[in-house]
Amino acid sequence: MIDFRPILFIIGILLATLAIGMIVPALVDLYYGHPDWRVFSAASAVSLFIGGALVMMNRTEKLRMTSRQAFILTTASWLVLTAVSALPFAFSNMNMSYTDAFFEAMSGISTTGSTVMVGLDTAPPGILLWRALLQWLGGIGIIVMAIAVMPMLRVGGMQLFRMENSDKSDKAFPRATQIAMGIFTLYVVFTIIWTFLLWWAGMSFFDAVAHAMTTIATGGFSTKDASIGYYDNPLIDVIITLGMTTGALPFLLYLQTLRGRPLSLFRDSQVRWFVTIAASIILAVAIWHSEVNNVGFWTALRFSSFNIISVMTGTGYATTDYGLWGAFAVAVFFFVMFVGGCAGSTTCGVKIFRLQVLYEIAKIQLNHMLRPHGVFIAYYNGKPLTEDVTESVLSFFFLFVFCFVVLAAGLGAMGLDFVTAISSAGTAIANVGPGLGPIVGPSGNFATLPDGAKWMMSAGMLIGRLEVFTVLILLSPDFWRD
Amino acid sequence: MIDFRPILFIIGILLATLAIGMIVPALVDLYYGHPDWRVFSAASAVSLFIGGALVMMNRTEKLRMTSRQAFILTTASWLVLTAVSALPFAFSNMNMSYTDAFFEAMSGISTTGSTVMVGLDTAPPGILLWRALLQWLGGIGIIVMAIAVMPMLRVGGMQLFRMENSDKSDKAFPRATQIAMGIFTLYVVFTIIWTFLLWWAGMSFFDAVAHAMTTIATGGFSTKDASIGYYDNPLIDVIITLGMTTGALPFLLYLQTLRGRPLSLFRDSQVRWFVTIAASIILAVAIWHSEVNNVGFWTALRFSSFNIISVMTGTGYATTDYGLWGAFAVAVFFFVMFVGGCAGSTTCGVKIFRLQVLYEIAKIQLNHMLRPHGVFIAYYNGKPLTEDVTESVLSFFFLFVFCFVVLAAGLGAMGLDFVTAISSAGTAIANVGPGLGPIVGPSGNFATLPDGAKWMMSAGMLIGRLEVFTVLILLSPDFWRD
Ligand SMILES: [K+]
Ligand SMILES: [K+]
Repeated sequence: MIDFRPILFIIGILLATLAIGMIVPALVDLYYGHPDWRVFSAASAVSLFIGGALVMMNRTEKLRMTSRQAFILTTASWLVLTAVSALPFAFSNMNMSYTDAFFEAMSGISTTGSTVMVGLDTAPPGILLWRALLQWLGGIGIIVMAIAVMPMLRVGGMQLFRMENSDKSDKAFPRATQIAMGIFTLYVVFTIIWTFLLWWAGMSFFDAVAHAMTTIATGGFSTKDASIGYYDNPLIDVIITLGMTTGALPFLLYLQTLRGRPLSLFRDSQVRWFVTIAASIILAVAIWHSEVNNVGFWTALRFSSFNIISVMTGTGYATTDYGLWGAFAVAVFFFVMFVGGCAGSTTCGVKIFRLQVLYEIAKIQLNHMLRPHGVFIAYYNGKPLTEDVTESVLSFFFLFVFCFVVLAAGLGAMGLDFVTAISSAGTAIANVGPGLGPIVGPSGNFATLPDGAKWMMSAGMLIGRLEVFTVLILLSPDFWRD
Repeated sequence: MIDFRPILFIIGILLATLAIGMIVPALVDLYYGHPDWRVFSAASAVSLFIGGALVMMNRTEKLRMTSRQAFILTTASWLVLTAVSALPFAFSNMNMSYTDAFFEAMSGISTTGSTVMVGLDTAPPGILLWRALLQWLGGIGIIVMAIAVMPMLRVGGMQLFRMENSDKSDKAFPRATQIAMGIFTLYVVFTIIWTFLLWWAGMSFFDAVAHAMTTIATGGFSTKDASIGYYDNPLIDVIITLGMTTGALPFLLYLQTLRGRPLSLFRDSQVRWFVTIAASIILAVAIWHSEVNNVGFWTALRFSSFNIISVMTGTGYATTDYGLWGAFAVAVFFFVMFVGGCAGSTTCGVKIFRLQVLYEIAKIQLNHMLRPHGVFIAYYNGKPLTEDVTESVLSFFFLFVFCFVVLAAGLGAMGLDFVTAISSAGTAIANVGPGLGPIVGPSGNFATLPDGAKWMMSAGMLIGRLEVFTVLILLSPDFWRD
């Protein structure tokens, strides 16, 4: 029998934390004199009550967990937090069904950024802040998980980033807690820096806070229906582009950089790949946009760099409807969606390190076909890759594609047209935000989708955010067998 | 230095064979009194001359090849045969540019079946027969390669089907030549049977021959612009559905069945998977079509079974424009394109055995995550899978997807809209035939695509047909290094 007490205990603590988080929008609404402060206070009380009850009832001596318990905890905590975070949306006067509220909350916590809300420009401040806060919390949550939980659970090749390995060669970080605190501090500092940068560049202070949070979290919720395009300000574009990139690099490397290894960031192969891939695609799309749509090259470069970085890091802001840039650009935006950023960042998708591993393995395969008796070893960042890691990464890729296909077909069955269905499936599973086409494209909105499609997409966001395996393993009958 | 003589020698022999093949449409045109008989005779002479010259100049004592030579031979022979097969298209009075002629020939030899010809119903008989013959030759060519060449070259997990392995346990087939002869005979017999079935069901004898050849080869070239929909005959639909299925199963198993092991076919896990997957999808689409489009269930099942089998086996016939069946059906048709049939058949795509291996590996990965110290072994058809095979299959899947993405983006750059670009990329690389959307869908045609797109698609068909690795390996600088 699985012991659920430690699982419920930790979910309780997380709910209590969420209750504290809900006080922030309550205070903001109170400050702006908006009646929603009551909704947030009530939701906070509910969250605190459930959380407290779970903590009380499940106190246990030892908090060590088996990996089975850790798997259940990961998915269950994400689901419970989403269900409770949805309450303010459902009970504010935004006229949202619980389906819509759950979709919006999942899109927030998973840092996806697809929205079903229309009229953001006039939405109450508490709700806007709550959306930003959910992404901000989801973002730090995922970094901590990527560093502390995923490697232990050996999810999709994340065992590459196991702490024990780096500990041996590296006495600079003795304790996981210390690392977690360091990263949290850094995350807060980044958010403060980008708040002031955006404020300085011309945003209102409120908008600056909200956008700083969703930028660093590569979340993509905006306070404007037109997203960052609302400001039409090149300076803001550049600041946010840098912010999204910051959110897409491995946070652990920032710590190393700060602790006296200034070159860690530049020496890391994942970072180099990210920069190379992003720069090549930005340039290609800028040239296309400039040639085909008769736009000056620098204007094309400005819009190409912002929107490609936004989609590639899975942030999902838009400064224009790039769906109108023509065939090549649309195809590139579709595929770039799946790339993602680096492991140990706030981004989702396939991720750069997996592309590196896939590339290495393909190269080895070709060599192996040529010299069947040769011995070839795949390397990552100078270290040989074990079979365990390579098969994990390859299976991840297959399952990622498989889930995408199933989700796209499911959304088709809900009546979404082909482009809407496949781009919505992609945007959900890669946690990007906007899709393609007139309905869910960068100028569109997920509000008009049928309820079934919203639930399917919510499931897709969860599966994508938790690196596929973590959720799918719970569906295996073997998992529940003793 | 690579010794090109044996390569050129074999290409010479193949060209001489092609020259003999060209005499068939020449005789048919002569019989029908069409002046194209001169074009075919001239092309035959050219082919015979080049082929003869190559044979003469490159006669060598030993015909043993290194795998490097075998890789060059595979891609080079396919390219040279296509270039020469294109001549009759280019010089007949069909007004085709050489680009169009090459596209049509590649689409034929690779058994893809995408066409740039309009007005098939009134096209000269020689040209129609030549298209069918190209697919028929391509079909048998690929079976022989899948049995004799690919396993030796260890392409994408095909080493699973290596002869030496089965030889040890199985003394029934002492020699590869004998097997090749057996399969060729079977291929001819199947073609004759289907010719008579189609003739009996109401086709003209000429149409019956042409369609029997492109059915068994899962090629999909028709003699009618409306494809099989022209006949609107349920009996023909059923006969062709059975024929496409016959072409999609492993031909080696037919031999075993005939040589006294009647259950081989039903005991093979690849065949079971194929039937299960096909049946489930046919049923799902039939239910959708019947419910959403207000069609009787049996009519829906008739059209669903024909068209799903056609797309899944990569044949590419159509009896109706399934692009109009609505979102779910379109998404399913898009993804089913990539499935393909069994290894050792005339079909292309990812293929069933790779899906089985991917499924096994994903299952093992989940078990392994649950019990990190457990030992789990993946099986295929009751035999354990080696790491060599699993990594081959996984890399194949990744490279297949990668080539699809690059091709789709390239077609976008040629100005094709999103749906046309991604479905054309898919249909080329999986050698299916029709794409999706108004331009290249089942009722459409590839004639209006720009020349650049046609060359890109030709490359895609070649890459897909030769199992990706075989072509990509030639692009590696290591390949050409001594
Ligand atoms: K996002
Ligand atoms: K075909």
